[in-house]
Amino acid sequence: MPSPDPGRRNERSRRAILAAALELLGETTYAELTVEAIAARAGVGKQTIYRWWRGKGAVILDALSETAATDVALPDTGDLRADLRAVIRATVAEFADPRLSATTRALTIETLSDDALAEQVRDRLLRPQLDAVKARLRAAPEVRPGVDIDQAVELLFGPIYHRWMLRTGPLTESYADGLVELALAALR
Amino acid sequence: MPSPDPGRRNERSRRAILAAALELLGETTYAELTVEAIAARAGVGKQTIYRWWRGKGAVILDALSETAATDVALPDTGDLRADLRAVIRATVAEFADPRLSATTRALTIETLSDDALAEQVRDRLLRPQLDAVKARLRAAPEVRPGVDIDQAVELLFGPIYHRWMLRTGPLTESYADGLVELALAALR
Repeated sequence: MPSPDPGRRNERSRRAILAAALELLGETTYAELTVEAIAARAGVGKQTIYRWWRGKGAVILDALSETAATDVALPDTGDLRADLRAVIRATVAEFADPRLSATTRALTIETLSDDALAEQVRDRLLRPQLDAVKARLRAAPEVRPGVDIDQAVELLFGPIYHRWMLRTGPLTESYADGLVELALAALR
Repeated sequence: MPSPDPGRRNERSRRAILAAALELLGETTYAELTVEAIAARAGVGKQTIYRWWRGKGAVILDALSETAATDVALPDTGDLRADLRAVIRATVAEFADPRLSATTRALTIETLSDDALAEQVRDRLLRPQLDAVKARLRAAPEVRPGVDIDQAVELLFGPIYHRWMLRTGPLTESYADGLVELALAALR
């Protein structure tokens, strides 16, 4: 009888751990989430998690970035306003969602304290979406030539962070649409 | 001989503590700063600090907000572009300064973890500046009627936070000026 393939077994454990982490995030808060609970739910030992990750922040980052990769899906209907509304409404809704907001808050705290994690959050969790929007803006005839596309994308997402972090106003659809109008006026 | 006025003595201790906190922030990192060190430098007991503040975050907030109040000084030269450049360049320079950036980062972490502190940071440290810029925008003939002034001010400051938190680009004067141009285009 051949021995079980360790690579396949590892991959199965890895997927079980990431799935368990996301499940538990849906049932508890990030603050209450522990590596022990993830291990128990995934049916692995705690040391298996620590062999692959530095802590719960890193596990959650991996779990979220695998979901995010399939999530981005910036529409390209040919109508820049409609496409930006879709992506900005979705982003605003994420920040307005109490559970997602708590996770984002926790990840933000961890990234502000941990440069290595910050780089990974940026490159794996956020960059795919930012890059998709940048590509869309670069190709859009509505955007005037010479606009700095890095700054353009920050004009769309930065105000949402600001309002969310400082809790200075509602995070609603009409807020999202207003933001898109302001950004479009800046970029035309 | 009259006994010393306790109100005056308290005020003297309070000022010594705030000054000590700012001094120490200039010599060490926020992470290394302790309530003990502030007390020693101010020549008071640790318990004096804990009688008035919940921890170093609250002390730093008080110290910074007393400085900030005199700092705001948004110019009003009648030239909106010049005035916004001045305030946005100064803000970008603050975020680019390694020491100030470390303090801001620490305060951001504390505000993300502590709702009461978040409210105070927002209302005492940030709102005076945001309000000054809002008043300037509201009065400016360059801004078209009907613009949401809350969103306008977020369009100026939000992108700076975004770039600073995610470290996605340089925080330079030319970046600051580019941001002002984009915001002005949005608001005209």
